[in-house]
Amino acid sequence: MALGKDYVGQECVLARALELLGERWTLLIVRDAFYGVQRYNDFLVHLGIPRAVLAERLQVLTHGGVLEKRRYQESPPREEYVLTATGRELWPTIHTLSRWGARHHSAGMESTRTFAHATCGTRLDDIGLCPKCGGLVQPEDVEMRTTVSGAPKPLDRVSAALRATRRLLEPISA
Amino acid sequence: MALGKDYVGQECVLARALELLGERWTLLIVRDAFYGVQRYNDFLVHLGIPRAVLAERLQVLTHGGVLEKRRYQESPPREEYVLTATGRELWPTIHTLSRWGARHHSAGMESTRTFAHATCGTRLDDIGLCPKCGGLVQPEDVEMRTTVSGAPKPLDRVSAALRATRRLLEPISA
Repeated sequence: MALGKDYVGQECVLARALELLGERWTLLIVRDAFYGVQRYNDFLVHLGIPRAVLAERLQVLTHGGVLEKRRYQESPPREEYVLTATGRELWPTIHTLSRWGARHHSAGMESTRTFAHATCGTRLDDIGLCPKCGGLVQPEDVEMRTTVSGAPKPLDRVSAALRATRRLLEPISA
Repeated sequence: MALGKDYVGQECVLARALELLGERWTLLIVRDAFYGVQRYNDFLVHLGIPRAVLAERLQVLTHGGVLEKRRYQESPPREEYVLTATGRELWPTIHTLSRWGARHHSAGMESTRTFAHATCGTRLDDIGLCPKCGGLVQPEDVEMRTTVSGAPKPLDRVSAALRATRRLLEPISA
C-alpha cells in the first residue's frame, strides 16, 4: 500500500525511504542480507515468510536499488540477491534499531548477537562506531558473535550457520 | 499482524523492535514526535493518516513505551503524546534512515530538511555526529532547517510551523 499522495506531497525523504523499506519483513530481509543470506530458499526458511510476500519484497528491493540479482547457476538458472552499495549504506539504520531493541526489548531472549570491529576485536558502540579506532565501522569489517544461553534446539541451516562467529556480508555458502 | 511465532522463536532483537515499529506509519509518527507534534489532530493533518490507524498506532507506541500520554487540558479532558526517554533513543535510527533517503531518494523534492548541532551551527554528518564537536548530538540539541525551492502552496499548520528553523522536540504550540 502506498502512502497517500498528499503525504508524498510533503516531500519528506524519510517518507520516501519508508515507501521502500517501511514494512517489517522488508527490514528483516535487509538484515538477513547483511548476515550473508543470498538465496530465496534461505530467506524463506530463516524468516518463515510467506512465499508470495518474499517474492514481492525481493522484487521491490531489487527495483529500489537495495538488492541486486546475480545469476549463480546457469542450468537450471538460479539467482541470488546481494546488497548493492546503496543497500549496504543501510547498515547504521539496521544496527541502531537492533541495538535499541537489545536495550529495551531483549527480556527472555535465549540468544544475543553482538557486533565487533573485526580488525581490533572491540565491540561497536550503539551507533556503530569502534570505541578504540574511532570511526564508523563498515559492515564488511564487522564481526558478529552469537551467544546462546538456552537449551539446544533444532535449527534451520541459516540459523545454524549464524551460530558461528562470522563477518557480515560473508555469504552463507550453499 | 504479528510475525509468525516461529520467527519470534529466533530471538532477534531487531525483529522485536520491528514488532513495535515495523510499519511505515509508525516511524512517521515517531518522526513527527521528534518534530514537536504532540496532539492527535496535528498528527492527523500532518500525516494524512486514517483516524483509526492513527489511534491504533498511538496506542501501540504508548503501550510499547515509546510515547507517553500527558493530560494538557482537564475540561474537556485532552491528552497529548510525547516521546519517552526510550522513544528519544530512536533518533539515530530515524536520522540515519532519513539521510539514506536524502542520498538516494530525493529526486524531484521541493523542500529539504537539514539537521545541525544547535550549539555550534555545524551540520550533522550522516550518522548524526557533529563534525566539529565530535559526539553524537542528542535530539534536543538538534536544529532543523527547511529549505524550499518550489512555488509556495497552502500548508497545514504543522507543515507551516516546520518551515521555520526549530529545535527538535520543541512542541508545536497550540
